[in-house]
Amino acid sequence: MNVVVQSIERAEAEVIGGLREAGVATVHEAQARTGLMSARMRPIFAGAAIAGSAVTVSLPPGDNWMVHVAIEQLQAGDVLVVAPTSACTDGYFGELLATSARARGCSGLVIDAGVRDVRDLTAMGFPVWSSAISAQGTVKETLGSVNVAIVCAGARVDAGDVIVADDDGVCVVPLASAPAVLEAANRRLAAEDAKRQRLAAGELGLDLYDMRARLAEKGLKYV
Amino acid sequence: MNVVVQSIERAEAEVIGGLREAGVATVHEAQARTGLMSARMRPIFAGAAIAGSAVTVSLPPGDNWMVHVAIEQLQAGDVLVVAPTSACTDGYFGELLATSARARGCSGLVIDAGVRDVRDLTAMGFPVWSSAISAQGTVKETLGSVNVAIVCAGARVDAGDVIVADDDGVCVVPLASAPAVLEAANRRLAAEDAKRQRLAAGELGLDLYDMRARLAEKGLKYV
Amino acid sequence: MNVVVQSIERAEAEVIGGLREAGVATVHEAQARTGLMSARMRPIFAGAAIAGSAVTVSLPPGDNWMVHVAIEQLQAGDVLVVAPTSACTDGYFGELLATSARARGCSGLVIDAGVRDVRDLTAMGFPVWSSAISAQGTVKETLGSVNVAIVCAGARVDAGDVIVADDDGVCVVPLASAPAVLEAANRRLAAEDAKRQRLAAGELGLDLYDMRARLAEKGLKYV
Amino acid sequence: MNVVVQSIERAEAEVIGGLREAGVATVHEAQARTGLMSARMRPIFAGAAIAGSAVTVSLPPGDNWMVHVAIEQLQAGDVLVVAPTSACTDGYFGELLATSARARGCSGLVIDAGVRDVRDLTAMGFPVWSSAISAQGTVKETLGSVNVAIVCAGARVDAGDVIVADDDGVCVVPLASAPAVLEAANRRLAAEDAKRQRLAAGELGLDLYDMRARLAEKGLKYV
Amino acid sequence: MNVVVQSIERAEAEVIGGLREAGVATVHEAQARTGLMSARMRPIFAGAAIAGSAVTVSLPPGDNWMVHVAIEQLQAGDVLVVAPTSACTDGYFGELLATSARARGCSGLVIDAGVRDVRDLTAMGFPVWSSAISAQGTVKETLGSVNVAIVCAGARVDAGDVIVADDDGVCVVPLASAPAVLEAANRRLAAEDAKRQRLAAGELGLDLYDMRARLAEKGLKYV
Amino acid sequence: MNVVVQSIERAEAEVIGGLREAGVATVHEAQARTGLMSARMRPIFAGAAIAGSAVTVSLPPGDNWMVHVAIEQLQAGDVLVVAPTSACTDGYFGELLATSARARGCSGLVIDAGVRDVRDLTAMGFPVWSSAISAQGTVKETLGSVNVAIVCAGARVDAGDVIVADDDGVCVVPLASAPAVLEAANRRLAAEDAKRQRLAAGELGLDLYDMRARLAEKGLKYV
Repeated sequence: MNVVVQSIERAEAEVIGGLREAGVATVHEAQARTGLMSARMRPIFAGAAIAGSAVTVSLPPGDNWMVHVAIEQLQAGDVLVVAPTSACTDGYFGELLATSARARGCSGLVIDAGVRDVRDLTAMGFPVWSSAISAQGTVKETLGSVNVAIVCAGARVDAGDVIVADDDGVCVVPLASAPAVLEAANRRLAAEDAKRQRLAAGELGLDLYDMRARLAEKGLKYV
Repeated sequence: MNVVVQSIERAEAEVIGGLREAGVATVHEAQARTGLMSARMRPIFAGAAIAGSAVTVSLPPGDNWMVHVAIEQLQAGDVLVVAPTSACTDGYFGELLATSARARGCSGLVIDAGVRDVRDLTAMGFPVWSSAISAQGTVKETLGSVNVAIVCAGARVDAGDVIVADDDGVCVVPLASAPAVLEAANRRLAAEDAKRQRLAAGELGLDLYDMRARLAEKGLKYV
Repeated sequence: MNVVVQSIERAEAEVIGGLREAGVATVHEAQARTGLMSARMRPIFAGAAIAGSAVTVSLPPGDNWMVHVAIEQLQAGDVLVVAPTSACTDGYFGELLATSARARGCSGLVIDAGVRDVRDLTAMGFPVWSSAISAQGTVKETLGSVNVAIVCAGARVDAGDVIVADDDGVCVVPLASAPAVLEAANRRLAAEDAKRQRLAAGELGLDLYDMRARLAEKGLKYV
Repeated sequence: MNVVVQSIERAEAEVIGGLREAGVATVHEAQARTGLMSARMRPIFAGAAIAGSAVTVSLPPGDNWMVHVAIEQLQAGDVLVVAPTSACTDGYFGELLATSARARGCSGLVIDAGVRDVRDLTAMGFPVWSSAISAQGTVKETLGSVNVAIVCAGARVDAGDVIVADDDGVCVVPLASAPAVLEAANRRLAAEDAKRQRLAAGELGLDLYDMRARLAEKGLKYV
Repeated sequence: MNVVVQSIERAEAEVIGGLREAGVATVHEAQARTGLMSARMRPIFAGAAIAGSAVTVSLPPGDNWMVHVAIEQLQAGDVLVVAPTSACTDGYFGELLATSARARGCSGLVIDAGVRDVRDLTAMGFPVWSSAISAQGTVKETLGSVNVAIVCAGARVDAGDVIVADDDGVCVVPLASAPAVLEAANRRLAAEDAKRQRLAAGELGLDLYDMRARLAEKGLKYV
Repeated sequence: MNVVVQSIERAEAEVIGGLREAGVATVHEAQARTGLMSARMRPIFAGAAIAGSAVTVSLPPGDNWMVHVAIEQLQAGDVLVVAPTSACTDGYFGELLATSARARGCSGLVIDAGVRDVRDLTAMGFPVWSSAISAQGTVKETLGSVNVAIVCAGARVDAGDVIVADDDGVCVVPLASAPAVLEAANRRLAAEDAKRQRLAAGELGLDLYDMRARLAEKGLKYV
């Protein structure tokens, strides 16, 4: 029942890079507001912004054995995405594992559980999005799986999906739709540039988006 | 049922400025510990400290249409105070809305829900106190109201009340009592200066506040 | 029933200093993963790392009278550890109390409740680990006890136990076992140095910890 | 600063009785979805349904002194509405207080905190809506106020407002609008009767509410 | 982007019936501990136990329009499975919708949000598993989708998957593996009967499962 | 490091029986409001009321191996008290384990984690206080300890302490003080009988407890 899938497809590097630059809020909009993880996922330090192919890990509460297994499957730029099979805040990952993951080219960790050594991770500039910070250690007794389909913090993730993470949270872009989502994201960004200038100049959204007639029709009263 | 009240009273600029300098903890004490919002309201970056007149917004979960309507009602220095009619962590507000609000002179946002683009908002120095950070977008389909009485994060807010916000949270000062609260706050600050020096010199609160007799009377035993 | 125990034993200064340098994650491992407080305990600013002897305080919700009593019992380097008898997020402690505690040599505060004046506390460099930040003040009406056994954020604390706190959380080391825990922690740190170099060079944990045979035996399949 | 307002206005008994029969969900709809307390307010036993005039209590965390004061202000049919000034789960109210409140004709308790003796309260049939059940006792040391404006579980309550509570939660109807809300509620109930029969007979809401054209216009695709 | 998939595959009635009799805990074990929804999903009354084919609904926070659309897609025995696109506790579903759903043969509702009219639903014996109870109503303004893949309370659900729900929670069985899961569940149930008798007679699990040698080998000490 | 302590002291049967009859709220008061577990501990069915000697279990998240070990240590009337070393909601305990525990005379389970088969446990009348209900199963891979000192739901528990549990929650009475606590509890119960009659007759707590003078002295104003 427990497997390690060794060969997964990944998106093109330019697609991944473009999604990183677009950022979580724009990417999430560009794919019709799907794929966002729960707001309980927070960065351990402000300002990090990454994108990469998901190497997924399903593992038991309080047991990080499969993280060691998963690190062997990482390629340069990949993001490790870890989901316990039941809710757990233990510290699955610290500075030694980050050193090992970085040596494989890992660009960051997304985990719906805890991490520790956060001062060291911050000093290393190794970005992590987690639902907890805890020094509580884990054991290495029970198997899980690597590169299988998981649900992480409420979002479906398949191995190879593009993970985009920044200060706004974490968004999952399915591998197959990544190029189309990037295109849609870039269209949004271009459109926003024009709007930003008009709004900065004092024009109101009510006029820019032509909302007044529809507000009146719905019955809004100014008093 | 949905209205926009266009004309509201505001406190004097000097009163608002004085309350900002006094800070949330002192202002809250000065008005008999009333008006504090829930501790779930946190700043998106440390160090901001504002005060301003409340422009209030009541709106549905997952729908930020009324924020656009409210921005037109903002005057220089005002604080936008937003409360959904049911609990919601969606990202109602981001960098484009902040650009628009700032163009109207808005000094900051207080919202019992989520915001997004927090890296951009931080770079702009646009202060926000919110109960969540989330990239999840909102729609523009359902009306709400502007400048009506609301409950935001457990506190009653009427349009024109003075909002004071800093790293300790958010406090609401009713418009009518703002001058008196400022006076009381200033008296507290003066009294604290004297106490601070004596405490820093090693004098104990037990002696400074003359607590020993009452502790003994209540039955405290030293062993 | 309410007592202040005035004379408590403390660990040796070198032991305390060594535990501080080892840090929470290592110390917690070194004592068989016991003594960790709940992950809801977070520092009010990043980067602080302290260790010291616990002066414990048990007090009622919304009443900080006993904190004043406890400050008299502090010796240089001590950590104030405060647990309300029922859950409470009020701001028990602010800049004036920190000024007083620092004048007695207090190295920091650990409190399973709220604190306020966090901008001032940060400017002073006075470290605090708390479960909330709130401007809500407290009264001085009801007794509690100082230097009695308490449960703070899920961990047992006796007066004089060594408290270790950093960005990973807060860990309690029983006084009697502190020297042995320090030895075990130092052994772990030495062992980690060697591993870190090998991991940084690209060696896998799977090989470094010799995990492959046991994974196969448990039934892990590579596909 | 702490007051007991002894004379409050109350709604007519028939209005109160009508609102009780309409129930929380209908009343909440009938007043434009305002006045609902947070979903954390749950009944201690299923099946209770009450309405009555609010006697409001604002009190400190962990201190139930003001409940004794408030009981004197109760008239037959009144509902005691209790909000601590900061979050607290202590057991403020048990079987002795219920015995006393019932002797004054109190129809039930709404409290954004804890209660205890819930088996006894259930046996007495004394209905309570609370945010916690806890045996943790309280002290009688600090004043609060009775029959002042409060925020309870997120809803504004003025003394004399009509409180409606059943298995769906707790709703506050402002005294002034109670007769109009009852009328609107009764219109809703009449309209629902006709709909219920058609829906039970298998007619779809899509047709009953004539939704198909608008769904198509918004772009819904059937595949 | 918003679609209603009108034709879905369903499992055989005997398979569904067998899974219902096996119950959530056994079914979850029988499929290698996958598919369980979060423990926040609780029944509105004790004792209900259902299984049925999932008709899935993805919809916005605070908007139940798509529930009306989904009811048309229900066949006898189906279970309505509803997930908002962001966290929401509003009451999406009440007695009128239950009347309509029951008229279509619906066997129950699973919703990661709120429901209302719970006394009426209980009286009707219409089973619901939800993450909240709330009278807060919803609007009918924004589209969603029916019978698309969703994540509900942390579990992946595809339309036609078998939903099993009882007092222990809610479990999702993928359509393709439902017959195999039923077989595995029945084997577990048979094995448990024999164990139950031996345990009831006082035999210890330590002996029945032959654990003593392995405990000793791991180092457990009896003192 | 992992031990099973086989011989523990227990309180007298009459003391245990007396504490059960006094109930949680009274016992908690009688021992100066100490020993109460967190309000997150709730009974799986209403109306159960037990007391017994604690057989304590410390075990890892998601691993119930030690429960099997602990059952061998149970004597008639004992209460199993289980605390995971980190937060976990998995279902550690179900109907088979209850059958085994009951065969040893166990009077109930207190667990700061999840249980499953709650319908069966209810039908058996086997009382459980837990912080979750979840079908999520556990493994049997990692050791823990039996009859060591633990912290369960925020309360310190030593093996042999008397556990009292009813609808109000769970309270721990240290073995050494159990007889004295029972005496104090019985004094409280006797005093309450007299008060109950006077309150039922309409006398106010304000007069019964002679509160009016002290309220006036503190400054309460009647208006």
